[in-house]
Amino acid sequence: MSSQPLKIVVIGGSAAGPKAAAKARRLDEQASITIIQKEADLSMASCGYPYYVGGVFDDRNQLICTPAGIVRDPNFFEKAKGIEALVQTEALSIDRTARTVTCKHLPSGETRTLQYDKLVIATGATPLRPPVSGLDLDGIHTLHSLGDADSLRKIRDERKVKHAVIVGGGLIGFEVCEALHLAGIRTTVIEKTGSILPFLDPELSKLVENHVRTHDADIITDNGVAAFLGEDGQLRGVKLDNGTELPCELAVVAVGVRPNIALAEAAGLKIGAQGGIEVNASMQTSDPDIYAAGDCVECTSLITGEKVRAPYGDLANLQGRVIGQNLIHEGSATFPGITHTGICKIFDYTVGFTGLSASDAHARGLTDIETATVAGLDIPGYMKGKLLIGKMVADRKSGRVLGFQCIGPGDVSKRVATVATAIRGKLTVEDLANLDLPYAPPYSLALDQVIVSAHVLENKLLGRMQSLSVTEVKQRVDSGADCFIIDTRTPAEFEEQRLGIGEHLIPQGALRGRLDELPQDKDKEIILYCKISLRGYESAAILKGHGWRNVKVMEGGVEAWPYPREK
Amino acid sequence: MSSQPLKIVVIGGSAAGPKAAAKARRLDEQASITIIQKEADLSMASCGYPYYVGGVFDDRNQLICTPAGIVRDPNFFEKAKGIEALVQTEALSIDRTARTVTCKHLPSGETRTLQYDKLVIATGATPLRPPVSGLDLDGIHTLHSLGDADSLRKIRDERKVKHAVIVGGGLIGFEVCEALHLAGIRTTVIEKTGSILPFLDPELSKLVENHVRTHDADIITDNGVAAFLGEDGQLRGVKLDNGTELPCELAVVAVGVRPNIALAEAAGLKIGAQGGIEVNASMQTSDPDIYAAGDCVECTSLITGEKVRAPYGDLANLQGRVIGQNLIHEGSATFPGITHTGICKIFDYTVGFTGLSASDAHARGLTDIETATVAGLDIPGYMKGKLLIGKMVADRKSGRVLGFQCIGPGDVSKRVATVATAIRGKLTVEDLANLDLPYAPPYSLALDQVIVSAHVLENKLLGRMQSLSVTEVKQRVDSGADCFIIDTRTPAEFEEQRLGIGEHLIPQGALRGRLDELPQDKDKEIILYCKISLRGYESAAILKGHGWRNVKVMEGGVEAWPYPREK
Repeated sequence: MSSQPLKIVVIGGSAAGPKAAAKARRLDEQASITIIQKEADLSMASCGYPYYVGGVFDDRNQLICTPAGIVRDPNFFEKAKGIEALVQTEALSIDRTARTVTCKHLPSGETRTLQYDKLVIATGATPLRPPVSGLDLDGIHTLHSLGDADSLRKIRDERKVKHAVIVGGGLIGFEVCEALHLAGIRTTVIEKTGSILPFLDPELSKLVENHVRTHDADIITDNGVAAFLGEDGQLRGVKLDNGTELPCELAVVAVGVRPNIALAEAAGLKIGAQGGIEVNASMQTSDPDIYAAGDCVECTSLITGEKVRAPYGDLANLQGRVIGQNLIHEGSATFPGITHTGICKIFDYTVGFTGLSASDAHARGLTDIETATVAGLDIPGYMKGKLLIGKMVADRKSGRVLGFQCIGPGDVSKRVATVATAIRGKLTVEDLANLDLPYAPPYSLALDQVIVSAHVLENKLLGRMQSLSVTEVKQRVDSGADCFIIDTRTPAEFEEQRLGIGEHLIPQGALRGRLDELPQDKDKEIILYCKISLRGYESAAILKGHGWRNVKVMEGGVEAWPYPREK
Repeated sequence: MSSQPLKIVVIGGSAAGPKAAAKARRLDEQASITIIQKEADLSMASCGYPYYVGGVFDDRNQLICTPAGIVRDPNFFEKAKGIEALVQTEALSIDRTARTVTCKHLPSGETRTLQYDKLVIATGATPLRPPVSGLDLDGIHTLHSLGDADSLRKIRDERKVKHAVIVGGGLIGFEVCEALHLAGIRTTVIEKTGSILPFLDPELSKLVENHVRTHDADIITDNGVAAFLGEDGQLRGVKLDNGTELPCELAVVAVGVRPNIALAEAAGLKIGAQGGIEVNASMQTSDPDIYAAGDCVECTSLITGEKVRAPYGDLANLQGRVIGQNLIHEGSATFPGITHTGICKIFDYTVGFTGLSASDAHARGLTDIETATVAGLDIPGYMKGKLLIGKMVADRKSGRVLGFQCIGPGDVSKRVATVATAIRGKLTVEDLANLDLPYAPPYSLALDQVIVSAHVLENKLLGRMQSLSVTEVKQRVDSGADCFIIDTRTPAEFEEQRLGIGEHLIPQGALRGRLDELPQDKDKEIILYCKISLRGYESAAILKGHGWRNVKVMEGGVEAWPYPREK
């Protein structure tokens, strides 16, 4: 190529932008590449902010350094990457006819117009704020920018704040909740809807709620913030929708983000129905010379085919890499879409998910599904295994796995990564039922949680197991339904802790000899469970073998029961 | 069904046998089910033996108990499972015409003949022993049965043995090595072939060797045991093939197993070319009323289609479950095959693998492959990430991922489970390059090791990256080849540790300004690396952009270099 070097301009210097720029540079040493970044910093490890705020690490530089310890400033971008990075510079407008971007250096106010052959928009997103009074009080924060992280870290270090509220019970909300807890701040999470962590089905969400409460943090659901209350411009509390007032000196708002599309919209680029910039699989906008990636775009769900917003740092990087390739070799790379995967540490629990929850599936019109809730250890008890509670969702007709949620103190991350990959490969329950996973006692049970989940799903799909969720059992108990409930654990386990829902203790090993204690009406509903409901399932098979026709297992057993227990 | 109850006999009570029996029982409460077990115990957690021997846990009962603490003895099998378990009972012969199994109760010598409608053979395997003199000396053990575990645990507890050798550098060999090390025993692993852990490619195997040596355990390769040496019937040492004598009071032989096929063979069942019982996808032997599973059978490689032996506990359980279903509903379940997955803890390293190594692939005639070796952290440095070194193998034409090996102190298990699932789903490098995995700093980098491995493979498949393995670079250095080697790290990193192979230090950020220090012959071979060779790769792109035509990256960088370093 003896032509003019390609002129690439990238708007946005956090995740997708620098990745696109760096990948393009590796493919074309001659191209002219410029990044326009509104903030002072570049390539910030923004997912690390909660851990910096919480004091998991103290060196702020680690958020903006390469692993070799070099700060990713404009000098680094120039020397190591051959990329010009204009920081504290805001892109004001795009002229698609002239192929220019006009930007302003914020400290000096100087404007400048850059010519482009190819443009990348990676303008990210802005935290939403609830439309209530008092939003301008001191003490109301978000955790989105490095500046936000600095502010919250300062609050932590000063040790003056005693009470905080988090507005919004999503991933960021709980990451911040844990960070503030580590800082010795008594924290209450306020969630407007009926349950926290909306990607979880309610019964799993409830278990996480219980766990959070054991850490001296509180959660209020079904109640939004009606107003922030203050004195002398300083936050002093929040008023909830139901009138309750909670005193606090700090509020962190984490109710989601909206994509930054103003520039793109003003330039006449297509915006999708979900509010993000519309892109094709090459990450090209409606103008083929303009690409977009990261929190400002919509992408495709590989499960439903719908357009969705998925503002996650890993996806921004993947999309940026795809753009980098297409900038130099147009059409050479595609980003096929996402499988709705995410994960979060909440105190001693990990909460992970991929694909659709049962509620999600129903909301999207996928109603012919089957689910399996399985509780169990991640590794053997003799290796000090920890609990996992997972719920797998599959399409009833095809058997295709549609989703998996998993929570608990055990190694959730591995199981979610496994199922995310299975979903990407369109694997069925049958495929997962015989998966050849790495097994040794330090890492797994002989039959891993993922495989057992597939086995239970298979049993249900084949009609070998009829079951109820803990929620359904609770409803029956609360409504005084006519059913016979059996706890199949040992007397010692029963003595230690029991549900207290009118259950009868019949240990599984004694069941065959005690059938005369059961209702002689063979159509009466019998509900069985044990610690994790494996013995419950075996017992159900025994009863069915002896003629009872309405036998149901309570999935997940005692471990999955999120409601109060007798002791 | 008002017919006679089905008579099921299961030979073998360890893993596959009890699983088949229990699954059959859950599907048919009326069937008569009998397990014949030669040993005194049933359903032993045999993969846990090394951890019991090493003192990771002390309660032997945990190896034979249910999670609820009930010993899985014949009484438990009768009460909880409705299964008759005949322990200390050896199956002597199968009469396929009469459909009977004759067995002998070993303590009493009484024989008994059992009628079957369906028979399951799960006779397991027997540890191999090298054909050398001195095998009958006291002090030579294997770790296969619970009795073996008891013996080794006793040796541990007595604290008399000071020196041990392990014969065989495979998974079991190193699990035992670690267990003995924990017992304060100085241990040497002796491996006949050129490298330990044969499922790893040699350069990764070498890194594990280095790690083991840092734990005061030794490894001797390329040298077998020629004889066990003793005095008064007591082991005193071993003599190696090269004549060296090593003193030791304990030897543990772990050179693999042979399937126990004598019963099946005597009954005229087909034995496969790999020496295991031949079964179809339903786990049916050549006699449709006889099933077989576990260490005694051959199964199908889902990668090559070949028959292979895969004596792993998880597979035995999966196969047993398939048989349990087919016993009651013939043809209702299949075991499709395996993907060669395994894992092992070796001191602070985990060693995991799935699919084929490059050596494996070549040995099986799959020569049109590409590989990528990637070193990196499992989670961010600011979260105290630990090193992973992985090697991914793909088919060059289809891009299909064929294998993945991963070692290091980081979370190997998750990455191997992910790729094992990808291989099961026949995913390509392109699929993995955009995988939507669970990302948050406590669990992963923004771009996980698996994804980065796919990126590097993609770069190589597209001809964007030319590279050499550490072995190839070492060979060039040793042979005095005419090449120019550049370490692209920072001066501080170089000062701390360097390879000392005649390299030139040119930090990546300085490279564009120091091109005049490079060979002006643009065809001269230039080799670049950094800590993990990401900067090495970026630097290679710079050089290619400036006209150098023979530029190669040393894959995995300093972290993957298994040879001595300058300091």
